[in-house]
Amino acid sequence: MGIAIISPGRDVSIWVENITKIDKNIKVQVFPEIKDTEDVQAVILWQHPHGILDSFPNLKLICSMGAGVDHILTDKNIPGHLPITRIVDEKLTFSMTNYVIMGVLNFHRQIFRYLKDKNRKVWDMSNPEIAVRVGVMGSGELGGDVIEKLSYMGIEVVGLGNSPKTGLDYPYFDKSQTEEFLKAINVLVCMLPLTKETEGILNMDLFRKCNKGTYLINVARGKHLIEEDLLLAIEEGLISGALLDVFQNEPLPESHPFWLKEEITITPHIASVTNPEAASPQIVENYHRMKSNMKLLNEIDRNKGY
Amino acid sequence: MGIAIISPGRDVSIWVENITKIDKNIKVQVFPEIKDTEDVQAVILWQHPHGILDSFPNLKLICSMGAGVDHILTDKNIPGHLPITRIVDEKLTFSMTNYVIMGVLNFHRQIFRYLKDKNRKVWDMSNPEIAVRVGVMGSGELGGDVIEKLSYMGIEVVGLGNSPKTGLDYPYFDKSQTEEFLKAINVLVCMLPLTKETEGILNMDLFRKCNKGTYLINVARGKHLIEEDLLLAIEEGLISGALLDVFQNEPLPESHPFWLKEEITITPHIASVTNPEAASPQIVENYHRMKSNMKLLNEIDRNKGY
Repeated sequence: MGIAIISPGRDVSIWVENITKIDKNIKVQVFPEIKDTEDVQAVILWQHPHGILDSFPNLKLICSMGAGVDHILTDKNIPGHLPITRIVDEKLTFSMTNYVIMGVLNFHRQIFRYLKDKNRKVWDMSNPEIAVRVGVMGSGELGGDVIEKLSYMGIEVVGLGNSPKTGLDYPYFDKSQTEEFLKAINVLVCMLPLTKETEGILNMDLFRKCNKGTYLINVARGKHLIEEDLLLAIEEGLISGALLDVFQNEPLPESHPFWLKEEITITPHIASVTNPEAASPQIVENYHRMKSNMKLLNEIDRNKGY
Repeated sequence: MGIAIISPGRDVSIWVENITKIDKNIKVQVFPEIKDTEDVQAVILWQHPHGILDSFPNLKLICSMGAGVDHILTDKNIPGHLPITRIVDEKLTFSMTNYVIMGVLNFHRQIFRYLKDKNRKVWDMSNPEIAVRVGVMGSGELGGDVIEKLSYMGIEVVGLGNSPKTGLDYPYFDKSQTEEFLKAINVLVCMLPLTKETEGILNMDLFRKCNKGTYLINVARGKHLIEEDLLLAIEEGLISGALLDVFQNEPLPESHPFWLKEEITITPHIASVTNPEAASPQIVENYHRMKSNMKLLNEIDRNKGY
């Protein structure tokens, strides 16, 4: 019995290699070349064709190839009884955190101003720092690490999460206190899971509650942001600029206005990329746990959506 | 008796205000309006006219306005018996460290590549990170903080200092091991004090010992770098780029080739700017210590030059 990898358009040979290296008894099949559908007890998914899981009569485990599972939960055909796991990877956290810190520091130290000054041969020493207070929406595994690292650097940081928490080392607001959270910060980092509740959360209504000139960093999902609202919020000066790694449509279409917007910095969904060397052992471990009816690692809660 | 501030061309009213607020009995005079030269027992200097200290018969203490004292020691007329102090300021360390981390992360996560890609509407997800190992030349007050913060972030970092040290939390080389140090890194951060020994240390001879493609960050002094050698080293691919905050001549002259060099990022000596609110109490404290024959804070060793 074995595993199927379903990640259309991506070269997954390194995944096959890593899994087989760990346990040569696991038969790994790769979509669309899956011949023995009855053999498949676990699937590894990244943007799979919806409905395809019906083809595997012996399926017992669904693994996301990354930290997010929104790409799985949007498939309405997924059998309700199957457990879903995600990847938790230190290297993934390392990359995500460093990307966010880069974004925060580039705003704090105004790198884009100095790049422009260089082009015009301008030497302007005035006001070299913008005082920052960073707000992290979503203070789970990844958001928590950003908060910890920024705090250590001496940068003020505030967290926003789903539920009330107390006794933390940093100021924290729950979602009912979003307005107070936004008033306390001038850099807004979106690290939320994508759920029905968080989809489109970065919209004009929220931007209007921000301090004027707030800087936005979105490393979560493109669907968190209403893209036309960001353009409007920049026009109105509510938001001073943004670093975006994720978009409603990826790759970002050539005709998209973000490409030409000076205040927006674009990276091609690379803030944090799952590392097959780190992720494969977790998947093999869960495969064995499933076989022996043990508690799975990093299983998600379908009701919460993460 | 009192203090004279000698910092030509700079508005120092905030210094006068801060010092007077701490101790209203201190008479503060500002160059070039110093009328009562006999009253001056301490001077606060930033790029003072050389030789001017001879005008103060009762001078007992020389304070640098910043962290560096090279601008004082190059004045050959400074009486050998006078103590010289520098500013040690947490805020100064905070700024310097964040500037360096910004430079390291922008290289690590290739922000300049993505800015270029954006201009050409290119979506290229390949190889999103350059693995970095950072080498900090000068591991004193400021360099030590950069090492500590980068280590905490999980970034590999190596120190280089004047004298052998053991039992550290990070790999360390002394100056006799410079070649090994350079071989261990691909981001070189210069945070050295400027002394006879370190002047011009960033030269073609050193660049030839670097790993190909090493990135340079200079936040120390312009005189550490032989500027034409950097241009040559970039041409030859020894150095892939540089973030420079300091220059041989400041402001950087309009005709300087650095302005047009794509691989060089320029900031106008703002990595870390002395904060009068934090520095003034240190100077007042040392003024009183001098008057009562106490040990001074942050006194430099003239033989070492820092």
